[in-house]
Amino acid sequence: MRVKHKPWAKEKLAAHSAVVIQDPASCKGRWNEIFGNDQPIHVEIGSGKGQFVAGMAKQNPDINYIGIEVVESVLVIALDKVLAAEVPNVRLLAVDGASLQDYFEPSEISRIYLNFSDPWPKKRHAKRRLTNPRFLTLYQALLPKDGEIHFKTDNRGLFEYSLHALSEYGMVLHHVSLDLHKSDFEGNVMTEYEEKFSQQGYPIYRLEAVFR
Amino acid sequence: MRVKHKPWAKEKLAAHSAVVIQDPASCKGRWNEIFGNDQPIHVEIGSGKGQFVAGMAKQNPDINYIGIEVVESVLVIALDKVLAAEVPNVRLLAVDGASLQDYFEPSEISRIYLNFSDPWPKKRHAKRRLTNPRFLTLYQALLPKDGEIHFKTDNRGLFEYSLHALSEYGMVLHHVSLDLHKSDFEGNVMTEYEEKFSQQGYPIYRLEAVFR
Repeated sequence: MRVKHKPWAKEKLAAHSAVVIQDPASCKGRWNEIFGNDQPIHVEIGSGKGQFVAGMAKQNPDINYIGIEVVESVLVIALDKVLAAEVPNVRLLAVDGASLQDYFEPSEISRIYLNFSDPWPKKRHAKRRLTNPRFLTLYQALLPKDGEIHFKTDNRGLFEYSLHALSEYGMVLHHVSLDLHKSDFEGNVMTEYEEKFSQQGYPIYRLEAVFR
Repeated sequence: MRVKHKPWAKEKLAAHSAVVIQDPASCKGRWNEIFGNDQPIHVEIGSGKGQFVAGMAKQNPDINYIGIEVVESVLVIALDKVLAAEVPNVRLLAVDGASLQDYFEPSEISRIYLNFSDPWPKKRHAKRRLTNPRFLTLYQALLPKDGEIHFKTDNRGLFEYSLHALSEYGMVLHHVSLDLHKSDFEGNVMTEYEEKFSQQGYPIYRLEAVFR
């Protein structure tokens, strides 16, 4: 996602340190302490403008959500959405999904959301796709046995690739939907991007993948 | 597929016993002898009107094809297509896919094609879907290690179900296409049904699944 560079973003994020955790590595192993409860923790990698994580937190007050977004100029938009939603169960991190292991202990989180991730369509960039085995290994190390990845995208090529990569990794696919907005899936929270593209009539692909 | 009942079908099939094998159980274990060569044998379950099996046989003279279709009034149409294509590498069987093990020895066939199989949309009929684990067990017993199933359909629900069933069975999905006719897949041979539905703009879903 491209947004205008905001030189003031870092300062604004720092001013809301109750939501935007400033030194997430120091929270490794004590996230439930940070949230002040024992609820399960779900992580969205690439949370973008934050509509999903804010909406999910509102819909599911018994789950804690952590939104990860490396681009600070984008994360400030997410911060505004989280503040507006007045949800106590969200934290935001301005870090890279590829170094997830620096911030979480094994089994500290129980689900990972990937929404409209960068498709990296060129074959030589396949390793950067968030469903690449390199990332799956990382997720598996942090999730409990039977941990889940929930993935949606409008990008056909990325979804096709992911069906291959996830099955090759030995994951079981559940609730696959090849046209989410025409399916009977309930409780879908749309991302900003999803809202725009599904209005234009493009199908949204979705799946849940479980490690075993 | 519904077609008009043809009381003369059985007789016509019997009259072409070089193509339509009359006692396939007796051929178990000696199909390469029947074909008169050592080429790999690929089986299409539910070959319908035969355009696929006849077209594939023409395109790939180094492969032997066996088309299975239990409805004799449909199989006679396939017979006409095979005769018209003048291909020596096709045999047709008027048998049920569910009793495949009566006709083939383990590893006697090396690939199974499922094209536009009956979707059996009702949940209580899930066991009848040709990608149900009941059938996967049957296919696995007949295919060699690394044996492949090639599956295509226009039915979204059946494809979604199959992604679940195949991954749960531990199969690896390859070359998944969520819109076959807009993909770069080469050498696709269309079925009669596929021709009709893809012309109407519906996406055709396709995958290859490999046992391991």
